[in-house]
Amino acid sequence: MQQQIAIITLGIADLARSRRFYVDGFGWKPAFENDEIIFYQMNGFVLGTFSKAALEKDMNRTGLRSPGAFSLAHNVRSQEEVDDVMQSLLAAGGTLLRAADAPPHGGFRGYVADPDDHAWEVAWNPDWTIDEQGMVTIGA
Amino acid sequence: MQQQIAIITLGIADLARSRRFYVDGFGWKPAFENDEIIFYQMNGFVLGTFSKAALEKDMNRTGLRSPGAFSLAHNVRSQEEVDDVMQSLLAAGGTLLRAADAPPHGGFRGYVADPDDHAWEVAWNPDWTIDEQGMVTIGA
Repeated sequence: MQQQIAIITLGIADLARSRRFYVDGFGWKPAFENDEIIFYQMNGFVLGTFSKAALEKDMNRTGLRSPGAFSLAHNVRSQEEVDDVMQSLLAAGGTLLRAADAPPHGGFRGYVADPDDHAWEVAWNPDWTIDEQGMVTIGA
Repeated sequence: MQQQIAIITLGIADLARSRRFYVDGFGWKPAFENDEIIFYQMNGFVLGTFSKAALEKDMNRTGLRSPGAFSLAHNVRSQEEVDDVMQSLLAAGGTLLRAADAPPHGGFRGYVADPDDHAWEVAWNPDWTIDEQGMVTIGA
């Protein structure tokens, strides 16, 4: 089977509040939106922010919990950019989880939760490649 | 800022059990692995399966809960493939959440939870494009 993920879907309580975080905080542009879902075209896949109740109905499961046992990472090209992005996310409704510092494996990273408590790592990892289109390749 | 996600990291209780689901179930190949983490190079980004305790330490937060309010989707090119992939995932330690059927927006999809209760949608969506490299583009 193809080594491929098509969508990351996040369960959201208030779509307008979440939209502010992604559009104003990250500066991303929606590709599609209605009252229940907003899709963002990402680097080779799609991010969906979806009403949590609608997500539960779609997956035939109730009781989705927060904070979930996962994180998403946005990588940047320099150590300085880590703080810049984190400040922008905090100004757009994010909550600080970890101020940026150097992890044991090198580079620099911090964590901010989105308004629905989904964790975002903002990282500078000099060993990984980010191309002009945002395609990310794991380092050695 | 670049419209880019570099990593999806899932918190995992038992890495060997999880590896079986991703390697045998999806047929994916790890790009890097040690006792704490397995990375898979995906379509423009990286999937990480990471010891949940280590993830909590890295994000400076305890008490990550399951099932989290999110899902991941693997898209396929035909309705028939949806059932084939789901059967493979169930045989590799997955749990059925929703047997495949047709959603209101068209196509065909079902849901399987991985061994750590992270939800995977397996979907055929004829309006979205998947290229040879697995890059997925949202439809009209």
